[in-house]
Amino acid sequence: MILSELAKAVGGVLRGDGNLEIDRCASVRNAGTGAITYVDSKSRVPDLDACSASAVITGDGIKTNLSAIEADIPALAFAMALEILHPAGGKADGIHQTAVIDPSSKLGGECSIGPYVTIGGGCEIGDRVTIRASAVIGEGCRIGGGSVIFPRVVIYDGSIIGRNVILHAGAVIGADGFRFVEHGNERKKMPHIGIVRIGDDVEIGANSCVDRAVLDETVIGDGVKIDNLVQVGHNTVIGENSVIAGSCGISGSCRIGRNVVMGGQVGIADHIEIADGVVLAAKTGVTASIKKPGVYGGSFAQPIAEWRKSHVAYRKGSETLRRLSRLEQKGEKVEK
Amino acid sequence: MILSELAKAVGGVLRGDGNLEIDRCASVRNAGTGAITYVDSKSRVPDLDACSASAVITGDGIKTNLSAIEADIPALAFAMALEILHPAGGKADGIHQTAVIDPSSKLGGECSIGPYVTIGGGCEIGDRVTIRASAVIGEGCRIGGGSVIFPRVVIYDGSIIGRNVILHAGAVIGADGFRFVEHGNERKKMPHIGIVRIGDDVEIGANSCVDRAVLDETVIGDGVKIDNLVQVGHNTVIGENSVIAGSCGISGSCRIGRNVVMGGQVGIADHIEIADGVVLAAKTGVTASIKKPGVYGGSFAQPIAEWRKSHVAYRKGSETLRRLSRLEQKGEKVEK
Amino acid sequence: MILSELAKAVGGVLRGDGNLEIDRCASVRNAGTGAITYVDSKSRVPDLDACSASAVITGDGIKTNLSAIEADIPALAFAMALEILHPAGGKADGIHQTAVIDPSSKLGGECSIGPYVTIGGGCEIGDRVTIRASAVIGEGCRIGGGSVIFPRVVIYDGSIIGRNVILHAGAVIGADGFRFVEHGNERKKMPHIGIVRIGDDVEIGANSCVDRAVLDETVIGDGVKIDNLVQVGHNTVIGENSVIAGSCGISGSCRIGRNVVMGGQVGIADHIEIADGVVLAAKTGVTASIKKPGVYGGSFAQPIAEWRKSHVAYRKGSETLRRLSRLEQKGEKVEK
Repeated sequence: MILSELAKAVGGVLRGDGNLEIDRCASVRNAGTGAITYVDSKSRVPDLDACSASAVITGDGIKTNLSAIEADIPALAFAMALEILHPAGGKADGIHQTAVIDPSSKLGGECSIGPYVTIGGGCEIGDRVTIRASAVIGEGCRIGGGSVIFPRVVIYDGSIIGRNVILHAGAVIGADGFRFVEHGNERKKMPHIGIVRIGDDVEIGANSCVDRAVLDETVIGDGVKIDNLVQVGHNTVIGENSVIAGSCGISGSCRIGRNVVMGGQVGIADHIEIADGVVLAAKTGVTASIKKPGVYGGSFAQPIAEWRKSHVAYRKGSETLRRLSRLEQKGEKVEK
Repeated sequence: MILSELAKAVGGVLRGDGNLEIDRCASVRNAGTGAITYVDSKSRVPDLDACSASAVITGDGIKTNLSAIEADIPALAFAMALEILHPAGGKADGIHQTAVIDPSSKLGGECSIGPYVTIGGGCEIGDRVTIRASAVIGEGCRIGGGSVIFPRVVIYDGSIIGRNVILHAGAVIGADGFRFVEHGNERKKMPHIGIVRIGDDVEIGANSCVDRAVLDETVIGDGVKIDNLVQVGHNTVIGENSVIAGSCGISGSCRIGRNVVMGGQVGIADHIEIADGVVLAAKTGVTASIKKPGVYGGSFAQPIAEWRKSHVAYRKGSETLRRLSRLEQKGEKVEK
Repeated sequence: MILSELAKAVGGVLRGDGNLEIDRCASVRNAGTGAITYVDSKSRVPDLDACSASAVITGDGIKTNLSAIEADIPALAFAMALEILHPAGGKADGIHQTAVIDPSSKLGGECSIGPYVTIGGGCEIGDRVTIRASAVIGEGCRIGGGSVIFPRVVIYDGSIIGRNVILHAGAVIGADGFRFVEHGNERKKMPHIGIVRIGDDVEIGANSCVDRAVLDETVIGDGVKIDNLVQVGHNTVIGENSVIAGSCGISGSCRIGRNVVMGGQVGIADHIEIADGVVLAAKTGVTASIKKPGVYGGSFAQPIAEWRKSHVAYRKGSETLRRLSRLEQKGEKVEK
């Protein structure tokens, strides 16, 4: 592919030699002839001096000595270049002879089903679905077209997965939620007869878990992105396009809005509501509903500016105690 | 089943028409004719106005227009109704032809062993045990009657699992603990020859891990409930009926009492003792043993009332600094 | 084996009867005749009174009534004794007939490949590698000699694993990192064409995840030890011999030095650098690079002594407010 074609394909503006042959993407450090690299800030332009890439994707107003594609959102253009120059496998491998598929389940066209996959009865699998080695799909599940299920994912009975969903290795969809009823010294398990419903264009990271509902549904909205090792409790609903970083724990029966962003290791108590567009800093604890959009942080989520001030005072705590003692001593002198 | 029979079966008192046919449980929102739903607080009674359930399970003194079963612990009665009206599969599927079971292992009666399960040598599997697809049982393991092992659980060699235990997908029982001996710049792995022993009626969530002991045993007591993505370190002992929410991390060699309750993301350092009945708020950090029952919270666990007061002062920290400065200025004036 | 031989083998000094037969290691509580146990502090010597071990491994200057091996680092000597007296399986089981191995992949000598393992095309597996049941190795992976891959580990395409590496059950190596490009209301997935490179003598715990790089490599240095349920983000580099306890979350593009030690549940933001030898207390949050070795703790990592002082003041916060109010009242009186 030549640079001018690539520029067009990624919606950028060509600067320099449009006839350069581009055959791959690479980092500034490892790029050589034929590679296109990526620099999105002026401060990183000097790194290009020692770089032998053929070209660079960059932002408006960032000047470099290399031939370039300028784009409004350079990262977006680079993501598109990666897709074009490094297409994901995608070829349909067919159904491996070791896959155990219940005959009552229906598979769409051009599916790839890997070795040792098991698919229970009554499932509906869409077109161009990839299910990799040793994944386990329960009974009565639906998986929308174009979805990719990585090795060893487990999808419990009755789960509904949208189109173009990616579930990474080890993710568990639809295990029972954590609800027990205390009576005397014992705890009785609450049976879970609800399901998990995952929308379109969702990505869920490795070893993350989404529990099924007691009744009704646990819902992951369209476009939601969940990182690795995240826990989503039973009956919780996560709104469209929300983004949840690694190791977060969201308890049961929460209502998380749209476009909510959570940093890593955030914890949310049960029955919490979080408004659309809320951003939670890493490690935030949420024990009361958040009704207004904004950025929040701290052990008991508070607006981030407030939290920062509280934290500055916290770090001065020891000095504060000394100042207080000094004042008290002076006060005593005055009284005498 | 008619309502009067169900009332008897769940130990509740019938209010209204005992001859109503009930065939399922459902949420207030989705219940229709034939369904019984569940409302456990007066504040939720108005929700029943638009609900077309045939009946409702509710608490003493909560009046509704629907025919009802009143129960001392409504959630307990509803859990029982779920069990009665939605019995879990339970049918013995037999042993799938692809299961690889060492001939030296013994299986009880009416077991269900799924596709691609592997069971090492010298195991003793009790009656009515279910082992789902692709689970891996090591050598010399024991699994008590009635237990359910979900897909892809891994049980390392020598683990002992009680009766009626539920291990959810991806749980790992008996991996080596995290112990290395520093010498110079290197770390030598401490071999782990101990085991994990799990009591009766334990439930362990998806992708949770319980490490084996260096010597002797890591013990999960009878009736313990562990949520998803929880880590239990080597040689730790968890007392009966304790409840551990998602993403908690319990280090090695801890002694956790009976009926201890931990919220999500709690972290406990190694060699800690926690008394019976202690409750730890979500995200609590425990770095010193807790000898008295009570509710604790905070980065260094403190009694919850204390912690709340500390936190109130924390949030006022910035104002505190301003008040302090004002006093200092006044003091200087006085001195002049 | 007799005690004098064992003393020599573990590099310790014999005290007492060198002809005692020793056939196993055991805890003080459960040791009997033939067992050697381990006591590394004077305070635990009284426990030996009721112990019927044949001998004990102990430290310099710790006197006991039992025959003993004294060692500079008793834990190291005990680890060596465990290795000698309880050798890990190690026998080559050969290749199970159910393993699906692409013919274009090369296996070294004396490998053990368990049931239902799948190995993609173009892999190079070294000598004496053990791959346990249902593990999934993608295409083009390399695994160095002597490594042990426990059941259900998933290694994505192109990953490079060193020699004598241990990957515990459920670990996921090389899933896509968590990077999306916002444009309008949507998020485009950044394709990940980089790999994961794991050095020699690394151990990674159960259900932990190491994401692949966007470009280039995510690197786990030689000798690194990672506990269970840890997340390592894309493009991050972890220096040699660092130790990371359970449930830590390390974001993308971090540079973690050598010999760094992290307690449990530590969280590190993206693009952070941490100097060699830094120690992070459990639950530390790191949002700014740490350039100097030392021990750090707190929500925004600070030197541990500072943090402790801040925390002492935090716990006195409520009293501080009372003292401040009292001073203000006095001040008002004085002004009158």
